[in-house]
Amino acid sequence: MPDQIFSYSQLRSFSKAIFISIGCPEEQADLAAEVLVRADLRGIDSHGVARLSGYVRLWEAGRINHAPDIRVVHETPSTAVVDGDSGLGLVIAPFAMKVAIEKAKIAGTGWVSVRNSNHFGIAGHHAMMALEHDMIGMSMTNASPLVAPVFSTERLLGTNPICVAIPAGEQPPFVADFATTTAANGKLEILQRKDKEAPEGWIQTSDGSVSTNPHELKNGGALIPLGSDRDHGSHKGYCLGAWVDIFSAVLSGANYGPWVPPFVSFLSPPADPVGKGIGHFFGAMRIDAFRPASEFKQHMDRWINRFRSAKTIDGYDKVLIPGDPEREAEAERITTGIPLNEKVSEDLRELGKKYSISLN
Amino acid sequence: MPDQIFSYSQLRSFSKAIFISIGCPEEQADLAAEVLVRADLRGIDSHGVARLSGYVRLWEAGRINHAPDIRVVHETPSTAVVDGDSGLGLVIAPFAMKVAIEKAKIAGTGWVSVRNSNHFGIAGHHAMMALEHDMIGMSMTNASPLVAPVFSTERLLGTNPICVAIPAGEQPPFVADFATTTAANGKLEILQRKDKEAPEGWIQTSDGSVSTNPHELKNGGALIPLGSDRDHGSHKGYCLGAWVDIFSAVLSGANYGPWVPPFVSFLSPPADPVGKGIGHFFGAMRIDAFRPASEFKQHMDRWINRFRSAKTIDGYDKVLIPGDPEREAEAERITTGIPLNEKVSEDLRELGKKYSISLN
Repeated sequence: MPDQIFSYSQLRSFSKAIFISIGCPEEQADLAAEVLVRADLRGIDSHGVARLSGYVRLWEAGRINHAPDIRVVHETPSTAVVDGDSGLGLVIAPFAMKVAIEKAKIAGTGWVSVRNSNHFGIAGHHAMMALEHDMIGMSMTNASPLVAPVFSTERLLGTNPICVAIPAGEQPPFVADFATTTAANGKLEILQRKDKEAPEGWIQTSDGSVSTNPHELKNGGALIPLGSDRDHGSHKGYCLGAWVDIFSAVLSGANYGPWVPPFVSFLSPPADPVGKGIGHFFGAMRIDAFRPASEFKQHMDRWINRFRSAKTIDGYDKVLIPGDPEREAEAERITTGIPLNEKVSEDLRELGKKYSISLN
Repeated sequence: MPDQIFSYSQLRSFSKAIFISIGCPEEQADLAAEVLVRADLRGIDSHGVARLSGYVRLWEAGRINHAPDIRVVHETPSTAVVDGDSGLGLVIAPFAMKVAIEKAKIAGTGWVSVRNSNHFGIAGHHAMMALEHDMIGMSMTNASPLVAPVFSTERLLGTNPICVAIPAGEQPPFVADFATTTAANGKLEILQRKDKEAPEGWIQTSDGSVSTNPHELKNGGALIPLGSDRDHGSHKGYCLGAWVDIFSAVLSGANYGPWVPPFVSFLSPPADPVGKGIGHFFGAMRIDAFRPASEFKQHMDRWINRFRSAKTIDGYDKVLIPGDPEREAEAERITTGIPLNEKVSEDLRELGKKYSISLN
């Protein structure tokens, strides 16, 4: 069956209504829906409404607080630690990013580590909040363990994404948003649905051998850090994932490494937590804390123009600037709508039935 | 011919004497020698005394100021821009890192972007300066263009390394220090000396085809960003290299992308610079700006112990913690000495002859 198309506002209203149904205050429900559907809009389908029922199940399992007291528990002029009080990560993350931005207004930069949260949607949404303030934004999060460090058979790290968003002048902003694994879990899920083999270097079996089976994680296999193997720098991907884990969780007092609680409700969190919930890390740097914003933006335009006009390898149209594909998806989907896989739209309809909310 | 062994203090005194000979004030010569030889000590031979004659040639070419006025030209409570006045990067970088550390003492964090510098040795040295202050240290630098963005045949980025150094308690610190390419240029140089093929995914030819020839860069080829190819995430390595370039140079007013001046003196800097010299970026974050340092260190120890004791793939002894190999090299070489390749020791002897300084 072909994908069914939904408008952005349709999915956003539906998601908001669902969040209200599980008890979220209206303002939080609105923000959570905005962040969630932004993923679909930007073409990162794995992090959008496809996860809505997952959040609801976590709430049903008593693992999400629908009316949390999200608060700063420690701070200095340029730093803060936020406790998310087990609320929705979709709401906690923008709260923390705002704290970083406010700090940056006064101290030049702001850095916020977050504990007691859960899945925060796409990293890009939060980092990009800095752009309208003429600031560079950063966001990262740890996640439940699916990734084996180099030489290991154990899953000790999440796909731990990093986003860096940098404003430009006439050019659109530079937005790098990527998992620190060879391939994000979302890409694997696409192959799983189609039952297609994965390239070598994405996944290993439970004993650490090469595998191309996209279902290998069910057999105790693991995702591989960016780099694919030791000869091609997988120790660097491991460094990146570890860095994100430590900044997000060891700094804030969240769970780290294999102790990070799973997003799925059918798996229980580890019985011996080392912290609270999952962790995130956010940063905001005021451009004019370094040089005049207008000057910086002129040079960013020059940087972007030079890279965009680079000579290409035969068969390729153009060199991309980080953020191009997502921005193009957003521009298209805001007008033509968001295509949802049959399984996802069916899942939303079931959810709607349960809470008497119509999808259409 | 086998490598000849030199003691750390022998190489350090020799390097210091050379820097004094080219007019560096004693204190700067001492620091430059310390930073330079630290690379050999930590086993990163490509960044140590093998580069000493390169710095001298840059000075001979009038591209290094031996008595620079290194200074802060702009600042806020948590940020600064440092102008290195064309001095040795080996001296400018520790200056800038100290500024970051002093900012962090008061504002919680300190972030310093540097322009008008040149090669700063190993990123690890500077980031690790934060450790004794119970701070997390970060350092990055751009470098002359050897790396092609994804889909491009042009060399627009350097190998742009990142280092993150994080203190622990009873465990040694976590120190991730890596080039944002599949393989660092130093690794390629080793293959060049031995005339051995490189693995696929490290290098491309001038038209962007796969190559295993370690000499391909001489023919207009390029290094490939971490990830090796698009299917294995080379767009992520490109994002990382671009991020380093922008933080180091667009923020500070240094040259970026293809405008970064070459380290080698026989190549002229671009005739149309977009900034001054090369750029670096440094950060320092006080641990207790987030949580008590003792608590953080206990959890870092737990993190490290858990990863170090992870189950290994058959045939591998142990899972490494970032920084393990370099620390082990340092512990060994400080007592047994530093082996230098015949070509490198010969180069040093020639240099010594020129300035009447004995290597032995």
